[in-house]
Amino acid sequence: MIVLDGLGDRPVLSQGYRTPLEAAVTPNMDRLSKGGLLGLIDPISPGVKPGSDVANMALLGYDPNRYYTGRGALEALGAGLVLHPGEIAFRCNFATVDHSMRVVDRRAGRIHRYTSRLSKELNRMKLESTPDLKVEFKPTVEHRAVLVFRGSGLSRMVSDPDPKAHGLKVVQSKPLEKTHEAKKTAQALNEFVRTSHEKLKHHQVNKERIERGEAPANIVLPRGPGTNPELPSFKTKFNLRASCVTGTVLIKGICRATGVQVLHVRQATGGLRTDLGAKVKSVIDSFAQSDLVFLHIKGADVASHDGDFKSKVRFLEEADGAIGKIMDEVDIAENYILVTGDHSTPVEIREHSGDPVPVAMGGPDVPSSRVTKFCEAAASRGNLGRLRGLDLMPIVTDFIGRSSKFGN
Amino acid sequence: MIVLDGLGDRPVLSQGYRTPLEAAVTPNMDRLSKGGLLGLIDPISPGVKPGSDVANMALLGYDPNRYYTGRGALEALGAGLVLHPGEIAFRCNFATVDHSMRVVDRRAGRIHRYTSRLSKELNRMKLESTPDLKVEFKPTVEHRAVLVFRGSGLSRMVSDPDPKAHGLKVVQSKPLEKTHEAKKTAQALNEFVRTSHEKLKHHQVNKERIERGEAPANIVLPRGPGTNPELPSFKTKFNLRASCVTGTVLIKGICRATGVQVLHVRQATGGLRTDLGAKVKSVIDSFAQSDLVFLHIKGADVASHDGDFKSKVRFLEEADGAIGKIMDEVDIAENYILVTGDHSTPVEIREHSGDPVPVAMGGPDVPSSRVTKFCEAAASRGNLGRLRGLDLMPIVTDFIGRSSKFGN
Repeated sequence: MIVLDGLGDRPVLSQGYRTPLEAAVTPNMDRLSKGGLLGLIDPISPGVKPGSDVANMALLGYDPNRYYTGRGALEALGAGLVLHPGEIAFRCNFATVDHSMRVVDRRAGRIHRYTSRLSKELNRMKLESTPDLKVEFKPTVEHRAVLVFRGSGLSRMVSDPDPKAHGLKVVQSKPLEKTHEAKKTAQALNEFVRTSHEKLKHHQVNKERIERGEAPANIVLPRGPGTNPELPSFKTKFNLRASCVTGTVLIKGICRATGVQVLHVRQATGGLRTDLGAKVKSVIDSFAQSDLVFLHIKGADVASHDGDFKSKVRFLEEADGAIGKIMDEVDIAENYILVTGDHSTPVEIREHSGDPVPVAMGGPDVPSSRVTKFCEAAASRGNLGRLRGLDLMPIVTDFIGRSSKFGN
Repeated sequence: MIVLDGLGDRPVLSQGYRTPLEAAVTPNMDRLSKGGLLGLIDPISPGVKPGSDVANMALLGYDPNRYYTGRGALEALGAGLVLHPGEIAFRCNFATVDHSMRVVDRRAGRIHRYTSRLSKELNRMKLESTPDLKVEFKPTVEHRAVLVFRGSGLSRMVSDPDPKAHGLKVVQSKPLEKTHEAKKTAQALNEFVRTSHEKLKHHQVNKERIERGEAPANIVLPRGPGTNPELPSFKTKFNLRASCVTGTVLIKGICRATGVQVLHVRQATGGLRTDLGAKVKSVIDSFAQSDLVFLHIKGADVASHDGDFKSKVRFLEEADGAIGKIMDEVDIAENYILVTGDHSTPVEIREHSGDPVPVAMGGPDVPSSRVTKFCEAAASRGNLGRLRGLDLMPIVTDFIGRSSKFGN
């Protein structure tokens, strides 16, 4: 199961009213579409714009309406931390604020070095307002990090200190419900943010960054509070040994929460320059020991958020090449290959949208759509119709002969 | 959002196995279909035959399974009455019964004059069986009216006195649950119906009608009990300022219940001879002050209930002309136009059916279906697939950039 992050798009007027997928030369995905099942998937339901967390949960068969407990928890698990019941996790950015606490750069110049040194000032921070809490802070990829509050009497019903836009001031977190737990959590969070600024603003790493003309990573902005999601294991739910190849912390987190084995691929960065070859090798190597391999490729979403049509086209063509290599190695007479996206990210919007994404699946005994292109418009004429993210795993398990009967 | 009441139909053998929409010349709706999203909508779910109340609620994004509390309430709101918790409203017909209380004409010869004079005998009626109740009665359009019982200890779980067919006797309302409230409401309702006959049968208006050879409006037949629906406002739910152009009391009621502004159009009658030009002008005028304008056009449903294929074709062509005028005035490079129906009313059945209705939407960045006709069969080959009424508003809000993200 290959998931191209941010795959779907809308036609772009300046590009001949084509989508990136329509403009891209993708012979391998086209071949898969023509010879197999082809259709459209609404990650959640038609028109609903999903975050990556709920979208990928749905594709893996976990209903977010039932199981979703906030993104921070999945990020923390993905970063290798453990979460116990009642603990609260946040995803964080190192960011740059000016003297009036106005956000100048939400990503601190996309800092990618020395975040471990900065983090030493923040991990195990003692909070005066909530001395019973333990603070765990861990940097992940580039400017990203996770924060966990360990202790009792906490709630994830608090607002984000991150204003999520440049030029706005850092926000005071507020309780979103009238409970002692939410009040306590907001208080701890505000102290953490304030203290992060005090500890980082004169840090040696930042002095050097300023000297080099780079934005200082002088504050941490948490968002997306979450508690440990109590997910039934993938093995229990689908009777499948599954493994995952990804460079994205969130996806690793979802896999850890579901017991899907995350394979280590050093060169998988989750960016546009990710080493697809290394990912492909890892997928092929893991075939023998897995019933299902989940390959998540991030690049198309990065290009979409940058609003870069050409870059998205180029990355989709690279991904198609990688998929071609997998198709060469995998015996399609005995195995199934599925390609889809977790959501649409139109390059003209630069954010997720509620549009459906194409899906194609090839393998033994799969009906042929006879539609010769893998793209949004062609997929709407496919033989699979328009489905929801949660429909995918039942179809997969049914074809691979691992479905269980409903009724008798 | 333009809703053509009773739009959908089935192929009619004597008309070359075409539906009215297939027989109609509709260049504007065809253009919208070809250049935009095209598909089928099941107002509720496949095969479910909806009333106009639940169908229009669903199109506006309100789940009838959660929010529907009976049609009478929506009719009362549409007639300008106020409903408080616990009060019960009914929609009513002035009708004609013979000396044995057998219904001769359910619409009293489609009476359209002097219903206010008749209503003076009924409004504020004192009921002997339930002296604590206040009765409010108000005529609306032609033979139609609304009745409200104000007071405490009432229930909407009572059967209709209206037998809903000619030749049958007026029915005694019965409690549909074993509660004191349902018993009391049925008792009050039966006394109201009986008394309406006593007060109307010798009324001067009816003496004159009989002299002119017209059916006397000698009884009131209530049906469809409802309580005030507690709907979240459209503004809260979708962050949109919406307005509505309609000649139909029910649609006005749904709008009042959701805080959608109902624009007054004097010539909009909700019939076949409604002034579409006046409606179009009102839609165009309201564009500047609204994020969404809901235009409800009744005529096609009237022709369908009359079983008149040619009249339905003619009305659909008129409606297409009106839609063309809106398309001319609205800048499609910046705005969206959506056309659909609230349900199907096949002319050969003369009642609502559970068939899906076509939907087409044009506007910026909308993918082209390249299907050149707006009709039931062509819509089944469109790029939108087959959706449900409740899916419509999420898709609309996503395209106009007002959707909120699920997850993170």
